[in-house]
Amino acid sequence: MTAAGLYEQIRKKKSFLCVGLDTDIEKIPQHILKTASPVLEFNKRIIDATHDLTIAYKPNLAFYEARGAAGWNDLKQTVAYVRSIDPDIFLIADAKRGDIGNTAAMYAKAFFEEMDFDAVTLSPYMGKDSITPFLEYDGKWVVVLGLTSNPGAEDFQFLTIGSGEARLFEAVLHQGSGWGNPDQVMFVVGATRADLIRGIRNIVPAHFLLVPGIGAQGGSLREVVDAGITDQCGLIVNASRSILYAGQDEGFGKAAREASTALQQEMARYLP
Amino acid sequence: MTAAGLYEQIRKKKSFLCVGLDTDIEKIPQHILKTASPVLEFNKRIIDATHDLTIAYKPNLAFYEARGAAGWNDLKQTVAYVRSIDPDIFLIADAKRGDIGNTAAMYAKAFFEEMDFDAVTLSPYMGKDSITPFLEYDGKWVVVLGLTSNPGAEDFQFLTIGSGEARLFEAVLHQGSGWGNPDQVMFVVGATRADLIRGIRNIVPAHFLLVPGIGAQGGSLREVVDAGITDQCGLIVNASRSILYAGQDEGFGKAAREASTALQQEMARYLP
Repeated sequence: MTAAGLYEQIRKKKSFLCVGLDTDIEKIPQHILKTASPVLEFNKRIIDATHDLTIAYKPNLAFYEARGAAGWNDLKQTVAYVRSIDPDIFLIADAKRGDIGNTAAMYAKAFFEEMDFDAVTLSPYMGKDSITPFLEYDGKWVVVLGLTSNPGAEDFQFLTIGSGEARLFEAVLHQGSGWGNPDQVMFVVGATRADLIRGIRNIVPAHFLLVPGIGAQGGSLREVVDAGITDQCGLIVNASRSILYAGQDEGFGKAAREASTALQQEMARYLP
Repeated sequence: MTAAGLYEQIRKKKSFLCVGLDTDIEKIPQHILKTASPVLEFNKRIIDATHDLTIAYKPNLAFYEARGAAGWNDLKQTVAYVRSIDPDIFLIADAKRGDIGNTAAMYAKAFFEEMDFDAVTLSPYMGKDSITPFLEYDGKWVVVLGLTSNPGAEDFQFLTIGSGEARLFEAVLHQGSGWGNPDQVMFVVGATRADLIRGIRNIVPAHFLLVPGIGAQGGSLREVVDAGITDQCGLIVNASRSILYAGQDEGFGKAAREASTALQQEMARYLP
């Protein structure tokens, strides 16, 4: 998918919402546990309830890997289910991979060939050659960690570098934006860092920002938008737990839809 | 396993070799492709041929993920096979994960519960809370990326930070060594950076260094040892392609053994 394709989705759905499929088998409603593949079944019902309100889904790999090969099967079938329901939805593998060239090529194969994701999140620590193998796929994207939403972001991302004029996350944005054009490269910027998003926009005015941290992590959608929206939007804002676990009984799909609708309606007001 | 347990293995086998199981289905010998599970079969024969010469195996997750759930099955069975052959061998999941706390806990579950790895490689970019959930498992280890062997290491790891007295990788070693003791935390340091290992030893005198980059990537075992060995050893040196693909026909096991023996014998001479 191109950036133009993403913008078309955003205009059509009046939404820049991404639903994070961090599906924890210990948190899904009891009655779903009785089905043959509870995680897949839960995901399908969440997708049914939200796909007209969201432009993207972002399964978090850890939650699938924790269940081994069965988890990978659920993940692959979740991707296929999204494609069958709405082929234009953007699918992000939240994998945060990063390794040397020949290994990066294997990860690209895993997410772009073995499964049909549009994008994969990547850690920048190992530099350019850990990213570029993913960019060899036409229409596929990398989402490079810029500034993350967790407390540990302080440990390294905020270190001043060189002559003291920039911090590490700013260096990542600077360099990373040169690795590919705004049709290929996005950056993760945590919603809990809204005060810094204005500065980030100066570094990457045209690239999408994928913003997690709304909801359970405490970030404010309004503050993110005020600081980071562009004339075309330029934001994909993710919510996970606040949607997935909005309800705990048989009405969980309806509760997830209500939580998503609230976010979508707020987003519709902010869109240019 | 404790550091003492690792040192006992090193003394017993006169080796600090780790064999990287980066098993690429496109590179394994033709006759193995005819078996039911070629990757698993290949791994078993490599393990049979090398386990008395190595103290560790390090499967590279990307090579398994590229084959989806089937790859994860092969990985899990490879781990179980190593345990059945030699329960004292150290098993490292080369996964280079790194995510916020609740996600990190899920990755820990994947590698330490769903599979029985001793250690997992982690990227430091997201800081302490992306690492500590792994340290809650007694006897398990994290291997934090310090200085990597690839060209992209130059992009960020060598940036000078703060007042210019340290580089990013040195800050990672400094902080990372405080996250856990030398029975829990190791660091990845590429063999292609042997000139920097002496300085690294000053920062982390007691922690194990996991050193990839010998063989196909061009690092020198001699130079790594000269710069990095401690009075107990303190090194685990990995070779992957130069062992796995030493032979291309039915004698590949023998060829892998010869390549491993050459490294083990060189290591025996260097051991304190």
